[in-house]
Amino acid sequence: MIENSLLENNNTSCLNPGERLDDLMLKGYQIIQNPKSFCFGTDAVLLSDFAASCGLKGRILDLGTGTGIMPILLAGKTEAPSLVGLEIQTEAAEMAERSVKLNGLEDRVHIVRGDIRESGRLFSQDSFDSIVSNPPYIPVSGGFLNPGDSKAISRHELLCTLEDILKAASSVLKVKGTFFMVHRPGRLTDILIKMRQYHLEPKRLRMVYPTADSEPVLILIEGRKGGKAGLSTDAPLILRNPDGSPSKEYRRIYGFQGNP
Amino acid sequence: MIENSLLENNNTSCLNPGERLDDLMLKGYQIIQNPKSFCFGTDAVLLSDFAASCGLKGRILDLGTGTGIMPILLAGKTEAPSLVGLEIQTEAAEMAERSVKLNGLEDRVHIVRGDIRESGRLFSQDSFDSIVSNPPYIPVSGGFLNPGDSKAISRHELLCTLEDILKAASSVLKVKGTFFMVHRPGRLTDILIKMRQYHLEPKRLRMVYPTADSEPVLILIEGRKGGKAGLSTDAPLILRNPDGSPSKEYRRIYGFQGNP
Repeated sequence: MIENSLLENNNTSCLNPGERLDDLMLKGYQIIQNPKSFCFGTDAVLLSDFAASCGLKGRILDLGTGTGIMPILLAGKTEAPSLVGLEIQTEAAEMAERSVKLNGLEDRVHIVRGDIRESGRLFSQDSFDSIVSNPPYIPVSGGFLNPGDSKAISRHELLCTLEDILKAASSVLKVKGTFFMVHRPGRLTDILIKMRQYHLEPKRLRMVYPTADSEPVLILIEGRKGGKAGLSTDAPLILRNPDGSPSKEYRRIYGFQGNP
Repeated sequence: MIENSLLENNNTSCLNPGERLDDLMLKGYQIIQNPKSFCFGTDAVLLSDFAASCGLKGRILDLGTGTGIMPILLAGKTEAPSLVGLEIQTEAAEMAERSVKLNGLEDRVHIVRGDIRESGRLFSQDSFDSIVSNPPYIPVSGGFLNPGDSKAISRHELLCTLEDILKAASSVLKVKGTFFMVHRPGRLTDILIKMRQYHLEPKRLRMVYPTADSEPVLILIEGRKGGKAGLSTDAPLILRNPDGSPSKEYRRIYGFQGNP
């Protein structure tokens, strides 16, 4: 994992109670998080690597940016001049704005407060070269969930569904533009069906396995707006060696020099 | 690979010119093949393992059985009392019938000559507990293919398409019955979309990688007629170790004791 220790430096003056500052081990970038509400996971790091490895450029939108982890990582991993993060939750968006400022990325990263389902009104049609999203994974199936719980919102499809994400992406992405998403393998059928339905043809898939002997926990998928049918699948992304140590690929993605 | 050496024994009297007898390394079973027209591949062996590992039972149909490799392997790997192989090509079906007899499997394995597209007329609706298929993988896209070439027929969708297979399976499979198929990863989107369209809900997926560093070459998929949405993905099936030797899993599937 990226080092999540509280950094004792001058930047802590920008923190609110309960927040902490984490080192992204990427060009000195840091991010403000709150363990009680908003913390990014492995998903965001893997998605940023998957998307960046395709040579992302131009104008990029992150649908549901949370504390801004995706645009900040992509600012470090690509030369993209404009990265927009859309976030509905005020507290997360405000934390993202402070992190952008803290990293001196105000010229490249812009946080927009708003609802993914309003993307077509918030942004011009066909205006982004690429779209990324690390959306809530779990469908809402009637169990009790607090709609004001920020953790529940980021995990469950309370404020936006898979379909909302794909509809929004399809609307504001340029023709031939690329869409990148991380999600759960259990939703693969829905994802492929709905990506095609929204003209985001699935073009590349990578399965993420904790070890070579375990079921995948995540999928990384790339679609192309108006693309032809035909899916390439990458080599498996296996996170740990049989002895539990991080795999070579995991080390590359996280930029480890030594032990994590 | 299963040992494909010509066996010098008494059974060779059942061979036509150009044919050979191969040991399946499974309960002493053998199969008649012809290197110029009909030889099974790794695909069939992996599919038989994938399907058998689900505890196949009852009445099983193999759509496009070729020389009968699937019902013969499944006869050895399961207790299924009735295995039907449907094959349109006369030469292959006739070879399959001879192999069934050679192995003394006439009571359990039945070869039917016919067109997959006629399955609804050849068999009663909802009459099979499970269906397996190792269909042609490659869509016909206008290039010249000899429609009388048996190798072309088994590789290209000349006589039946993915849709024909799924339509046939959906018609003759019992409700809650299971469907097993091996195919190419590049067709995954089409496969998942059309499986759902034909009410064969994708339930289990396994990706087959030649090595841990390579793209997958095959997918193994299980569907359930009338099943609920939700896909489980198995641990990766990695065929070879970094040094090129067969992996533990590959050895298990092929029943190797020593070096292959």
